[in-house]
Amino acid sequence: MADRPALAPAPLSALAARFSAVRDLSLALAAPLSDADATVQSMPDASPTKWHLAHTTWFFETFVLRDHVPGYVLHDSRFPFLFNSYYEAEGRRHARDRRGMITRPNLDEVRAYRAAVDAALLAALPSLAPEVQTLVALGCHHEEQHQELLVTDICHLLSENPLEPAMWPAPRKVPVEMPGPVGWIERAGGIVQVGHDGDGFAFDCEGPRHDALLVPHAIADRTVTNGEWAAFIADGGYQEARHWLADGWAWVKAEGIVAPLYWEQGETGWTRFGLDGRRALDPAAPVTHVSFFEADAYASWAGARLPTEFEWEAAAAAYDASGGNQLDSAGPCEPRPSADGPAFFGDVWEWTGSAYRPYPGFKTADGAVGEYNGKFMSGQFVLRGGSCATPRGHARASYRNFFYPHQRWQFTGVRLAKDL
Amino acid sequence: MADRPALAPAPLSALAARFSAVRDLSLALAAPLSDADATVQSMPDASPTKWHLAHTTWFFETFVLRDHVPGYVLHDSRFPFLFNSYYEAEGRRHARDRRGMITRPNLDEVRAYRAAVDAALLAALPSLAPEVQTLVALGCHHEEQHQELLVTDICHLLSENPLEPAMWPAPRKVPVEMPGPVGWIERAGGIVQVGHDGDGFAFDCEGPRHDALLVPHAIADRTVTNGEWAAFIADGGYQEARHWLADGWAWVKAEGIVAPLYWEQGETGWTRFGLDGRRALDPAAPVTHVSFFEADAYASWAGARLPTEFEWEAAAAAYDASGGNQLDSAGPCEPRPSADGPAFFGDVWEWTGSAYRPYPGFKTADGAVGEYNGKFMSGQFVLRGGSCATPRGHARASYRNFFYPHQRWQFTGVRLAKDL
Amino acid sequence: MADRPALAPAPLSALAARFSAVRDLSLALAAPLSDADATVQSMPDASPTKWHLAHTTWFFETFVLRDHVPGYVLHDSRFPFLFNSYYEAEGRRHARDRRGMITRPNLDEVRAYRAAVDAALLAALPSLAPEVQTLVALGCHHEEQHQELLVTDICHLLSENPLEPAMWPAPRKVPVEMPGPVGWIERAGGIVQVGHDGDGFAFDCEGPRHDALLVPHAIADRTVTNGEWAAFIADGGYQEARHWLADGWAWVKAEGIVAPLYWEQGETGWTRFGLDGRRALDPAAPVTHVSFFEADAYASWAGARLPTEFEWEAAAAAYDASGGNQLDSAGPCEPRPSADGPAFFGDVWEWTGSAYRPYPGFKTADGAVGEYNGKFMSGQFVLRGGSCATPRGHARASYRNFFYPHQRWQFTGVRLAKDL
Amino acid sequence: MADRPALAPAPLSALAARFSAVRDLSLALAAPLSDADATVQSMPDASPTKWHLAHTTWFFETFVLRDHVPGYVLHDSRFPFLFNSYYEAEGRRHARDRRGMITRPNLDEVRAYRAAVDAALLAALPSLAPEVQTLVALGCHHEEQHQELLVTDICHLLSENPLEPAMWPAPRKVPVEMPGPVGWIERAGGIVQVGHDGDGFAFDCEGPRHDALLVPHAIADRTVTNGEWAAFIADGGYQEARHWLADGWAWVKAEGIVAPLYWEQGETGWTRFGLDGRRALDPAAPVTHVSFFEADAYASWAGARLPTEFEWEAAAAAYDASGGNQLDSAGPCEPRPSADGPAFFGDVWEWTGSAYRPYPGFKTADGAVGEYNGKFMSGQFVLRGGSCATPRGHARASYRNFFYPHQRWQFTGVRLAKDL
Repeated sequence: MADRPALAPAPLSALAARFSAVRDLSLALAAPLSDADATVQSMPDASPTKWHLAHTTWFFETFVLRDHVPGYVLHDSRFPFLFNSYYEAEGRRHARDRRGMITRPNLDEVRAYRAAVDAALLAALPSLAPEVQTLVALGCHHEEQHQELLVTDICHLLSENPLEPAMWPAPRKVPVEMPGPVGWIERAGGIVQVGHDGDGFAFDCEGPRHDALLVPHAIADRTVTNGEWAAFIADGGYQEARHWLADGWAWVKAEGIVAPLYWEQGETGWTRFGLDGRRALDPAAPVTHVSFFEADAYASWAGARLPTEFEWEAAAAAYDASGGNQLDSAGPCEPRPSADGPAFFGDVWEWTGSAYRPYPGFKTADGAVGEYNGKFMSGQFVLRGGSCATPRGHARASYRNFFYPHQRWQFTGVRLAKDL
Repeated sequence: MADRPALAPAPLSALAARFSAVRDLSLALAAPLSDADATVQSMPDASPTKWHLAHTTWFFETFVLRDHVPGYVLHDSRFPFLFNSYYEAEGRRHARDRRGMITRPNLDEVRAYRAAVDAALLAALPSLAPEVQTLVALGCHHEEQHQELLVTDICHLLSENPLEPAMWPAPRKVPVEMPGPVGWIERAGGIVQVGHDGDGFAFDCEGPRHDALLVPHAIADRTVTNGEWAAFIADGGYQEARHWLADGWAWVKAEGIVAPLYWEQGETGWTRFGLDGRRALDPAAPVTHVSFFEADAYASWAGARLPTEFEWEAAAAAYDASGGNQLDSAGPCEPRPSADGPAFFGDVWEWTGSAYRPYPGFKTADGAVGEYNGKFMSGQFVLRGGSCATPRGHARASYRNFFYPHQRWQFTGVRLAKDL
Repeated sequence: MADRPALAPAPLSALAARFSAVRDLSLALAAPLSDADATVQSMPDASPTKWHLAHTTWFFETFVLRDHVPGYVLHDSRFPFLFNSYYEAEGRRHARDRRGMITRPNLDEVRAYRAAVDAALLAALPSLAPEVQTLVALGCHHEEQHQELLVTDICHLLSENPLEPAMWPAPRKVPVEMPGPVGWIERAGGIVQVGHDGDGFAFDCEGPRHDALLVPHAIADRTVTNGEWAAFIADGGYQEARHWLADGWAWVKAEGIVAPLYWEQGETGWTRFGLDGRRALDPAAPVTHVSFFEADAYASWAGARLPTEFEWEAAAAAYDASGGNQLDSAGPCEPRPSADGPAFFGDVWEWTGSAYRPYPGFKTADGAVGEYNGKFMSGQFVLRGGSCATPRGHARASYRNFFYPHQRWQFTGVRLAKDL
Repeated sequence: MADRPALAPAPLSALAARFSAVRDLSLALAAPLSDADATVQSMPDASPTKWHLAHTTWFFETFVLRDHVPGYVLHDSRFPFLFNSYYEAEGRRHARDRRGMITRPNLDEVRAYRAAVDAALLAALPSLAPEVQTLVALGCHHEEQHQELLVTDICHLLSENPLEPAMWPAPRKVPVEMPGPVGWIERAGGIVQVGHDGDGFAFDCEGPRHDALLVPHAIADRTVTNGEWAAFIADGGYQEARHWLADGWAWVKAEGIVAPLYWEQGETGWTRFGLDGRRALDPAAPVTHVSFFEADAYASWAGARLPTEFEWEAAAAAYDASGGNQLDSAGPCEPRPSADGPAFFGDVWEWTGSAYRPYPGFKTADGAVGEYNGKFMSGQFVLRGGSCATPRGHARASYRNFFYPHQRWQFTGVRLAKDL
């Protein structure tokens, strides 16, 4: 973990405020949900809202309170088994695909668990050693990751209900002009520095910072839109093996994939399901809920390719990571059309062509916290940028998100690149 | 459906009273459950409580109100898709194994659906034609079936929670002497009449009444106990292929079966999970949660066999079908030891050696209601008698319950028979 | 095993002759096959030809030579592991679905194994005790069962080859008139005797002979034809859930079933694959390669039902079990149209509506041979009569064949019945 | 395809000689096999020998004779469907996991197919345009790839036979001293050139040649031995989650992995199965038949890491790619201990830590041949160096082999690296 605590002054009250804000947002996101909404698991990849709320709490309770606060007594000694996610070093845990069986404790009891841990942690905070405060900060970033998962997981659950209920009412739509043709940002190639520079928090996998060698290339100044994707479909994109990686084509055939997740062809055109229910698709908005396989096939069809993660990072470094369409508060979020020029952050996570592998010199931290990211470094691809469901402030130019190439229930999208 | 309405007098108020009593019991059974408890589906064989509550309501709404009450408007036009179970003639329906995705409507909304349909039905009852009143009676029996499923399904769900919560507090246990050795009821063989005799309600598969030819045999005067089953286990019963049917042995090996469902070996002996949580096993009580495969293997080990369904019916006909340990009201139910002599009804459904097939002259009724029982007549075995979760009054000597030979989450048990 | 050795005279030379004839037929059936043809396993239900040839030999070697001939040394001590089928009491055995991995020993080595065991057995025969001679007779019947499986298994393998090779050239077809409408053989009902009467060989499951009670019924005087089946298809038979058992409908949907196995719709009508390759379907011939689910659905569509196994046996008892289209020698076999009046034997095994369960008083024999039939008595249905691939002389009126309701690679067909 | 035909003189007779030599080796490798050995498919990843022999022939027939030789008539018009592998542009093809069903054509017929195509190609060779001669050369390299697969696929098939037959007799073993401790080859880091330099043949994925940036590192001068691997096992390597990638650990648990493929613990220590049957493991020989997951876990346990593919290439460039233990002729091949100093080629393919992805500027060729490598670029890892089953002359420093991280039936091994 490449975290370096901020220097001074008043880090403590800032940390307490940040902790409280993060914890509050999770509750706000879950506020529209019933106990049942918060309990059901819709697929093995997704977790129940209640589980997210409890697991993030377990993280603070385990790695901060239990390990570093003398005399702390567990809120409920049975919870670690229920709410550990994948930390092998923390002992046995409930099977990932059976998380939806835990109807009890109920949502209110999980809220009470949160309240108790929050109180204990805030009380302990002043006396925590700096390296333990670092763990608190890590826990906040960890919880922000789960906030995004909470939103996308609950969207998947609601989509499985034939009634397609909306989590929130639809926001007022402001008419936006269709974006113009893609512009291309060119770079001559050569050595660039990538990875986290040590200023502020970062996850372990973002470092060490190191040199990377880029080839001359151009990267698009915006992501692919729904309208462009509809043209890909109309051109037989899902029917032509030649656009697809072999594993992607096998996936298309086995799963009967014909469009992005949540798309349906209605009588008046494409619709999509989202946190505000089923709505007409906005052709001007960035396409989302596409897999790496789809992203790669689209790029192939378009005569382009996906950027590498370092091309992306080099281009994005000049932009404000806290700008764009990111999550500020609980409410419906979806990618939106924009006329504001290049936006590398927000709207959708952007698939890169880079496999998720360790940086030169990467070392796994000791202990259970060391299981954080390193053990997932096979079979997944890197996504960059942050989405409409990423809590604002969470994203960085060096941030590496990662998913398997068939997964698409996150807000995932596509930015093209090409060789020069 | 072999139903014949009772003759007179006052059938109407009796039907209304019965309807109300049945509907009330369902709500009482669900009373301890949270919205989440009532929503989650723990396996494809089981359904959520909320689904049981709604589906039984859909049955009345569809086959009585919609079909026979002029001007009736559906409570919610989207519910038939959600809450149809398997009636192909009633159109598309939600996939059986995705019933747990329906977090909305919530439990209160389902209760409101019940209240609305109840009110409409009670209002319409006086003007319904006799054959439609018959459908109301059918719906009551149908709902009683679902009450038993509700209880066993929720028990399975709670068992999947590592915390093993109890649905109800444990009842006070009255010490009971161990039952003595099995007594044998002998019959010389010859022709007997079996099947429903037309007096009162029966499901379609119980008729036509017909002659059956029995061989000389003896049937046990009680079911096998937990203590006897523990002896079977201790004797290597689950390790010896020779006791088992080939399909049963394959199931034992594939699933790692070593004891009845819900049994666990604790430090002080066997325990079982039930509606009152995990408790020590009562060696004097009838064994339950065993599959047909296990029942057959036990009988083989014991040098006996399972009775045929007609041997069972001939023996049971002399006993009171409304006696024994059956469900009178909401509360913990489990098989109990008894010193009251032969009990053919209550405690556990008894596996017979008879495949579930149609009686001579059986005809499927026309229309969707005709899908009631006939289409399940392959691959399943008949169980007789009723259990501690069977609403009292539901069972009959002619009643045919049926499950696949590997299923065991119902209150299923074993009575032995042998040739003379 | 209900076998009783024939009395006298000269049973020994007759047994030797029968043994030799049976053993020769197996080799003749395999004669057109290459080593590779004889080695590959096309599905878990089917076995390689080489395995059939070796397993039947293993049966004689194990239960006769090893157990009853002092000083006999196994031909190859590794073969019992390879060629035991399902006899748990005989120890570990090679997994059923990996039988196709055994490329060595090759076909010639298996033929040598056969020759060695044949020589040893014929040499030992004069000195074998009568009850061991009974085992030799059992082995002959056992091998006849495998001859039929060999033929149907190899047909399945060849059908999986896109080239659809023929095992034998097609026989000359003699034009036959279309059979007329079905005639109905009526029976008033009452008690009949069923099961093997003890005269000659029978398998254990055919006894004990016992009374059975029949209802008044009629049974068709011929089986359903290809032409009639095509009409069922044309009438939407495979698209209407109401004709089907629930498990059958699920099978149709999951497997995409639209016609009997090996049928294909060509430009000039239906064709079928068979031991003589792909040919036009003969509308006058009995339909074959249908599952129980299909047979039951057809009967439902036709307003009839399947006969019970005892209705069938009572009707068939008057006919010659060695007549009709059965297997006399190696060569192409398939059901043929006939103008010869009622034929209860040959052409196709006829699905009955009876689940395969033990007769009253059935006892499993001790030891490994006791595993013969009893342990398969769950989940399967009885077929009666014998097929074009059944060695002539093997069938009996009391003979009970059995398969799972979805299986259809045997020569299985349909005879209708109805209540009177 | 980065192929550049050699310049002059006499390329034609050299090409003809090479073509003949390659074609002959395939037949020699298959010589010990029976028709059945050559037909059976032991798992979906493996193909039958007969299929390899025919598919490589189909490649020449399709892309050379059919496309470029006027008047050429296909040897058998049904073969393209049978023996196309994955070229979508070449139309429908037989399902990969059903290749073992093709008992006909038999092995001799496939040999005749080879002979006919060989004759036609050699006759046409003088008149082929240079770019078509390039396709012939490509076909030779393609066939060499299949020779290695043929050897490893048949080894897997024979291992599935409980008799564990040997394909060839064991070679005489020359006693070899245990290799000493690993030596480390150090590199300061900086830019290196990688990828094929255009001199001679290379596959498309080996180019374009480009700069790569290396960090300071050390790479081992030999691969890990069986003895070292046994120490990893003895130290609980397969029982400690912390050494493993998450996907690797899930694979270990799901598959019950406890040692490399083909290893068994005998009474006198570890044995391994190979082309010469089951033998004692040689602790001095390079470990083989390990997956990427195992390789990565071993490296983690050893406090090292896997080299990147460019670290490997930079180190190997100084060594002779045609040296070491590679395949010269048909016969038993296995990794051997060596005292000859660093060997980067031969013995085992070495897993690298690099995901198999395109090089900068990589373009897929047009047409069916363009499907060669690019479409496999997701989810796989690069291996470098060549093995004991790689035809000598096939390997290059720039050669990129690739497999999924769980696959291990190839001769795969491990070379360690570490950061400086």
